[in-house]
Amino acid sequence: MLTADATPSTKPALHAIRGAFLDFLEDPYHVPESESVRYIPDGLLVLENGCIKALGDYAAMRTEYPEVPVTHHRDRLIVPGFIDAHIHFTQTEMIGAYGEQLLEWLNKYTFPTEAKFQDKDYARQIAAFFLDELLKNGTTTAVVLAAVFPQSVEAFFEEAQQRNLRMVAGKVMMDRHAPDYLTDTAETAYTDSRALIERWHGCDRLLYAITPRFAITSTPAQLRAAGKLLEEFPDVYLHTHLSENMAEVQFTMELFPDCTDYLNVYESFGLVRDRSIFAHGVQLSDSEFERLSRAGATIAFCPTSNLFLGSGLFNLRKAKSKEAPVRVGLATDVGGGTSFSMLRTASEAYKVTQLRGDRLSAFQTFYMMTLGGARSLLLDDKIGNFQVGKEADFVVMNLQSTPVLALRNPVAVPSDFQAMADAVFGTMILGDERAIAATYIAGQLTYKHPEA
Amino acid sequence: MLTADATPSTKPALHAIRGAFLDFLEDPYHVPESESVRYIPDGLLVLENGCIKALGDYAAMRTEYPEVPVTHHRDRLIVPGFIDAHIHFTQTEMIGAYGEQLLEWLNKYTFPTEAKFQDKDYARQIAAFFLDELLKNGTTTAVVLAAVFPQSVEAFFEEAQQRNLRMVAGKVMMDRHAPDYLTDTAETAYTDSRALIERWHGCDRLLYAITPRFAITSTPAQLRAAGKLLEEFPDVYLHTHLSENMAEVQFTMELFPDCTDYLNVYESFGLVRDRSIFAHGVQLSDSEFERLSRAGATIAFCPTSNLFLGSGLFNLRKAKSKEAPVRVGLATDVGGGTSFSMLRTASEAYKVTQLRGDRLSAFQTFYMMTLGGARSLLLDDKIGNFQVGKEADFVVMNLQSTPVLALRNPVAVPSDFQAMADAVFGTMILGDERAIAATYIAGQLTYKHPEA
Repeated sequence: MLTADATPSTKPALHAIRGAFLDFLEDPYHVPESESVRYIPDGLLVLENGCIKALGDYAAMRTEYPEVPVTHHRDRLIVPGFIDAHIHFTQTEMIGAYGEQLLEWLNKYTFPTEAKFQDKDYARQIAAFFLDELLKNGTTTAVVLAAVFPQSVEAFFEEAQQRNLRMVAGKVMMDRHAPDYLTDTAETAYTDSRALIERWHGCDRLLYAITPRFAITSTPAQLRAAGKLLEEFPDVYLHTHLSENMAEVQFTMELFPDCTDYLNVYESFGLVRDRSIFAHGVQLSDSEFERLSRAGATIAFCPTSNLFLGSGLFNLRKAKSKEAPVRVGLATDVGGGTSFSMLRTASEAYKVTQLRGDRLSAFQTFYMMTLGGARSLLLDDKIGNFQVGKEADFVVMNLQSTPVLALRNPVAVPSDFQAMADAVFGTMILGDERAIAATYIAGQLTYKHPEA
Repeated sequence: MLTADATPSTKPALHAIRGAFLDFLEDPYHVPESESVRYIPDGLLVLENGCIKALGDYAAMRTEYPEVPVTHHRDRLIVPGFIDAHIHFTQTEMIGAYGEQLLEWLNKYTFPTEAKFQDKDYARQIAAFFLDELLKNGTTTAVVLAAVFPQSVEAFFEEAQQRNLRMVAGKVMMDRHAPDYLTDTAETAYTDSRALIERWHGCDRLLYAITPRFAITSTPAQLRAAGKLLEEFPDVYLHTHLSENMAEVQFTMELFPDCTDYLNVYESFGLVRDRSIFAHGVQLSDSEFERLSRAGATIAFCPTSNLFLGSGLFNLRKAKSKEAPVRVGLATDVGGGTSFSMLRTASEAYKVTQLRGDRLSAFQTFYMMTLGGARSLLLDDKIGNFQVGKEADFVVMNLQSTPVLALRNPVAVPSDFQAMADAVFGTMILGDERAIAATYIAGQLTYKHPEA
């Protein structure tokens, strides 16, 4: 990205990155690791115009591209950029708020904080902080809720555009059960969202999500407006919350007594389809899982949030069943979630599955954070792994980022596959943003750890 | 501590620390915070010969001690040193091992790692790393399992003694259901433990714990030997595991068919008393809780471990009941636990209570980590808070240790009590070793964060 006062770039058309590369070609939940995981202990990734031109073993690639300038990330593991399937940029400053479960937490902490985002300058300042924090954590794409104010979305997209990021975001629609200062109407939600879609959806790398907060805070008229927008703009996302907490489910069913279950509320307004992202799904019935599978919809699994708010343990095994698989993305859900780090999030995902008596390998988790996340967003033609032609968003990981991890992982990047898998697992359990040595966006170094 | 080649200290007999001080006088679970928590936004702590001589408001204390040299920790919160009630130093390098629950995890990872501790040089090297890691995390006292080899205990105590630490440790007793290379006998366990007690218990600040691993790996003869040692050395600790995982409970009951429940196994050998520390207690019955309460015994609550190994959710509310309170210490349980940080451990303790529908305030947790931990070990006459006469082990905390925490906690150390409580809670949820600016042992600066 050129800033206004920069001199014209003299960078050659091609450049390349040398290092150990790990990515996914298929889902290691369903396809054996030997076929789903690609590991190149000494590889060369050739980049052209922000996209991937080639990837292969260093020796062979060097013969093919003898002139290309190479950046060598020695002793580092390079993986596709992480995809955070659900996060609130407006809750950045209220992360880790004490003592409540979902509905009380919204009233006590969230709504007052979100009110500040009426001020666009403030929204821009937090958006900038938020995006820098994502990059520092290796997150290159996120599905983001702004506030109810259109200017909060403007601020977010402007900052994301400046950084050339592939981001999905939308204005929260909320016309009841929230303070007056934080509500829109069915009509303004429609017109404001429509204007934002026309302005931002597909602009550079930005994508729009129609974002009713959840069924409790939208009247039927507003959910109908959301459905109308989806019909008019079929390649736009739908992003909302679903079945996080028992009190929420109960209140929803009181508000929509004609619906058979929580998902059916969204179904009845035409909101459940293959670009629909539902955060949480902790309390889903078997029938709801099956209907989400048939619709091709996505669940954003938010383990740190589900534990912090005491919502419960998401049934990942059910979602990943062979019979009725549901797309799943991993998500931090800041500020209900307690970390911007997808590694810390992955660590708690592992703990949730352990508490359920299941298992979750490092590769299954990294798949969810990369190619699986991309597939959840129907963006796997653009991001998610190192396939030729894709956009070159990637992360340079340090598997020895603390003294404890350096002791546990004595070889910086093992060439042996099983040893590498173990080192990645250790970093997933113990690591955080310190394990992110660098983040590249569209082939450009955008973040570098101070000690890297 | 003077090292061999140091010049004689010219430090004056008195020195003092200025800063904001937080400690506990009572348990905030049972006594209102206004009486249990002491907060001095600008205080002076006067130290003499490694102990606390006085603590009060800076202005008043300065008049009383006009000449004392003062170290000022500006914008920092000073709290008593953290007490880790259960940790394995021999599992340092195998932290975060993949995929298993308790019994398989022991066989697959733990036993092979512990075998290395037959080599005393190796044991000393890991003990040094381990203790430095504790200090970096603000942990000044821990209850530590060594390996089955007496030399692993020697190595640990030698390193702890060099650092002048108050530590509790013991040799693991294990004479069945473990590999031959890792077992002792009832007799050698007795004679080796006895020799270690005579050598180390009460030596400087070191204390001994008789440490049968758990009922599964000790024959009745060995548990009888443990009971005999306890009779002979009544001021020594008993440290073991209790009721962590369902398969473990079931196997235990098969091995001791005459016992009414798991705790009754230990009771029947005279091992349940007021210096007995039982790690986990996740699967305890109401009767076991009541008997632990009556005996004055301690449970070490190990949330990161209980989640990582999928053991379950400890019932802290039950343990803290007014009717039958059980002493509870907070513990990392490295390497089943996933962090050396008592802050990360506290964060997961909060999540466990949230999942159970309970609450846990920052003060309740910090009490468990400090005065509560000291009471669990019957060491509250020596450590746990800033009462006059106690040993001066304390931690200087930075409540703005990351950009996210600096945004969340905009005032470095709020003088307002509620604002300070909220900032402490945020650091408990989001913080880690970076929040530890410095650690003092017996009044001496022993660890300082590189950026502090």
